[in-house]
Amino acid sequence: MSDYTRYTELLSEIADISYATALLHWDLETYMPKNGHARRAQQIGTLSKLAHEKLVDPELKKLVDGLLADPPKEKKEARNIELTARDLKRKTLFDAKFVEETSRATSEAFYHWQEAKKANDFSIYAPYLQKVIDLKRKEAGIVGFEGHPYDALCDEYEPDCTVAKLDRLFDGVKNDLKPLLDAIKAKPQVNDSFMDQYFNHDKQWDFGIEVLKDMGYDFDGGRQDLSSHPFTINFGAKDVRVTTRVSEETFNEMLWSCIHEGGHALYEQGLPDSDYGLPSGSAVGLGIHESQSRLWENNVGRSLAFWEWKFARLKEIFPTQFEGVSAMDFFKAMNKVEPSLIRVNADELTYHFHILIRYEIEKAIMEEKLNAADLPSAWNAKYKEYLGVDVPSDSQGVLQDIHWSHGSIGYFPTYSIGSFYASQFHAAAEKQIGALDPNDARPYLKNLLVWLRENIHQYGRQYGSDELSERITGEPLNAKYFMDYAQKKYGVIYGV
Amino acid sequence: MSDYTRYTELLSEIADISYATALLHWDLETYMPKNGHARRAQQIGTLSKLAHEKLVDPELKKLVDGLLADPPKEKKEARNIELTARDLKRKTLFDAKFVEETSRATSEAFYHWQEAKKANDFSIYAPYLQKVIDLKRKEAGIVGFEGHPYDALCDEYEPDCTVAKLDRLFDGVKNDLKPLLDAIKAKPQVNDSFMDQYFNHDKQWDFGIEVLKDMGYDFDGGRQDLSSHPFTINFGAKDVRVTTRVSEETFNEMLWSCIHEGGHALYEQGLPDSDYGLPSGSAVGLGIHESQSRLWENNVGRSLAFWEWKFARLKEIFPTQFEGVSAMDFFKAMNKVEPSLIRVNADELTYHFHILIRYEIEKAIMEEKLNAADLPSAWNAKYKEYLGVDVPSDSQGVLQDIHWSHGSIGYFPTYSIGSFYASQFHAAAEKQIGALDPNDARPYLKNLLVWLRENIHQYGRQYGSDELSERITGEPLNAKYFMDYAQKKYGVIYGV
Repeated sequence: MSDYTRYTELLSEIADISYATALLHWDLETYMPKNGHARRAQQIGTLSKLAHEKLVDPELKKLVDGLLADPPKEKKEARNIELTARDLKRKTLFDAKFVEETSRATSEAFYHWQEAKKANDFSIYAPYLQKVIDLKRKEAGIVGFEGHPYDALCDEYEPDCTVAKLDRLFDGVKNDLKPLLDAIKAKPQVNDSFMDQYFNHDKQWDFGIEVLKDMGYDFDGGRQDLSSHPFTINFGAKDVRVTTRVSEETFNEMLWSCIHEGGHALYEQGLPDSDYGLPSGSAVGLGIHESQSRLWENNVGRSLAFWEWKFARLKEIFPTQFEGVSAMDFFKAMNKVEPSLIRVNADELTYHFHILIRYEIEKAIMEEKLNAADLPSAWNAKYKEYLGVDVPSDSQGVLQDIHWSHGSIGYFPTYSIGSFYASQFHAAAEKQIGALDPNDARPYLKNLLVWLRENIHQYGRQYGSDELSERITGEPLNAKYFMDYAQKKYGVIYGV
Repeated sequence: MSDYTRYTELLSEIADISYATALLHWDLETYMPKNGHARRAQQIGTLSKLAHEKLVDPELKKLVDGLLADPPKEKKEARNIELTARDLKRKTLFDAKFVEETSRATSEAFYHWQEAKKANDFSIYAPYLQKVIDLKRKEAGIVGFEGHPYDALCDEYEPDCTVAKLDRLFDGVKNDLKPLLDAIKAKPQVNDSFMDQYFNHDKQWDFGIEVLKDMGYDFDGGRQDLSSHPFTINFGAKDVRVTTRVSEETFNEMLWSCIHEGGHALYEQGLPDSDYGLPSGSAVGLGIHESQSRLWENNVGRSLAFWEWKFARLKEIFPTQFEGVSAMDFFKAMNKVEPSLIRVNADELTYHFHILIRYEIEKAIMEEKLNAADLPSAWNAKYKEYLGVDVPSDSQGVLQDIHWSHGSIGYFPTYSIGSFYASQFHAAAEKQIGALDPNDARPYLKNLLVWLRENIHQYGRQYGSDELSERITGEPLNAKYFMDYAQKKYGVIYGV
């Protein structure tokens, strides 16, 4: 057996363990009876440890070192070795004590975050968050960085991400989006009252499934279930599942999560099953992943043309609720812009200010300019400054997100990166496949998926984000495409 | 950390992996999309291998050997060590080559069994079954035995099971059940035509859930789902799940599987969660496990008194279907005795002849008196002899069961053992808790579960089957209790 073949065997085995762990998670979020929690947490812990042990096993390192010195001739294979070497390097930087300390600190922070949020009392959380912050600062030192300590962290979520790049990106948000937002604020608000009525659970569910099928999601290799927070999860490319949640009091909940998670899932379903467990069978990073969900959700699913085609069908299902509502009314309502407190409910435009605020705070944390205790006031000041809103309670403010309690500092920017890539890729796709025909979206949806499969999905991690973007669009990430898209969309909606 | 504590840690870790594997199976049978099959089989293979590696890890063997030489003072702990030593001994008897050969042979036999059954052509299966038979004969030699080579195999499913014991048991079947069966055959048949009508899926489902609740099955620590073959599976004692299947064309399908699997599940839910992964937290063997399912299904769920209480409720749900049907009519119909071809559809009485036939064939296989090619004619002759039925095709005959393709020779007798224990335990329980009150079964059902928990469930594997039976009933397995029960039940139904 060649060294490369043995390397693929070892990675496939690690993937088996990781996907089994993923199923333990999926079940926990969907069907597990409540008394199963304690043992399930333990089972997940054991399997995670096993996967880690297999990853840092000397046999794998020796194989990879050898193959790095004498690379396989095939480009894809050489690239796999290079990426695994990089992954192993990061994984082996931390000694067992540091890993365990981090694991304990984040478990405690997560628990106290939940308690603090429930009690609306940041002080319950602060000392545990501070411990996490201390460890993340230490982690940046261990990983090392050239420019900014934040680089060492965000790189884990979005390879090659740096503060230099992010600053440029968010300067664009401030310079270009702020005036657009101000212009919108000066206009009369759109009417979205018809969105908040009774919408039957099963009818919404069936419509969500129908839209997933419209998108090309393959139910022979996936399924949708209910969970309290929507997510996408996969156990290989042949079993990629989504979840959603349904509120009967509003239409502004389930469908967008179906389309969003459906976009993530189409990416995973498009990765090559033959490269199971290998970098070439895995997603590039969180930014590109998010670009897929947002492209489908926002650029397609919240477009006027799509609903000029699909709204008649929706009205068949909910004739009373949408009586007298036009596709244009529906389009405006689903894109209503309104500065608000909660990131996950934010519109496409103000969303990036929510991210900008978190990014600035995270950067200041890593520069040791802010500590846990300073976060509520920093948070509230920035919400006032960027969004003009007063934060009435920490539960609706600095305590709203789970991420920091998990130690995920450097994660938030990938949401904005994803949006910006989505518009950039979408523009490139439309150059080739043309625009959506409001009389029949089906050919467009089919062509779009083929385009994404051919240009993005099939490659796995063979190209980094920048390289991928350059191959497809001729340039690295450029927020201009998002600005153009936003300008056009909100021009129609608000006449700005 | 004491050696015993370390031992419990290692066993808990093995249990984590085994339960994760069990979840992979559960999902495969319930919700997995069809394209997930290939990778799922691989994931199950990897996790099974990992669990095996952990079990035969020298650290565990060293610990157990040490603790065996210098046992813990607590009786339960000493017994755990003793049982684990026995488990390890069996697991370490086989070298990797033999394990792999068996695994390959059974995979191939299973595949060809499916093909042969579909095509009704035993010859497709025969050479692969012969390979399995050869390996099982070899296995018996490796394991070793004092009396009969079959002892080495059946002991895996029912500890301390031997041909000497089984022969005695099945002589009873022949001597006592045969005359009863002949007497019944001479009587007019009961009417069960009302069982085969349209019964709405959801109404059956809800009734099944209701009966599971009547039995005391805890839905906070379990759930019921649909699958093509009903089964019970658990991931610790706090998450014990059952599945069932529903036919809308007959009432003779779902409910009995609910109660049967519910009985298995009550056992698993009653095992001590604090002994997770340890022998004292595990079921004794297949015979005792089956005793729990059959006690609930047959001794309780197919009793006249239970339905004198519950039938009014069932008639509320299906008033047209059961119009003019009395609890007695229903009781007779559900217990109709009729020699037939298919084991899983057999009544309680003829069922044991199905098992006897398989037992005699398996014994002859191990004595090298029968080989794969001889099985169809041996099968058909015995069905004629014991049940008086002509087997029209191998698909409905020797190909009906999956067990031999899996290499499970020695498994079938545990079904009869389970039935016999069920009657023996049930008689002992009723001595203490009294009989079921047809006006209100609830106190009885509650007391019965408490009795089973106190006398059987809480001990896990602390007592072997014989010892357990002696503690509870004053004697080891004795089929007389089943004969008495059968005589009484069929006396009422057939006047024999």
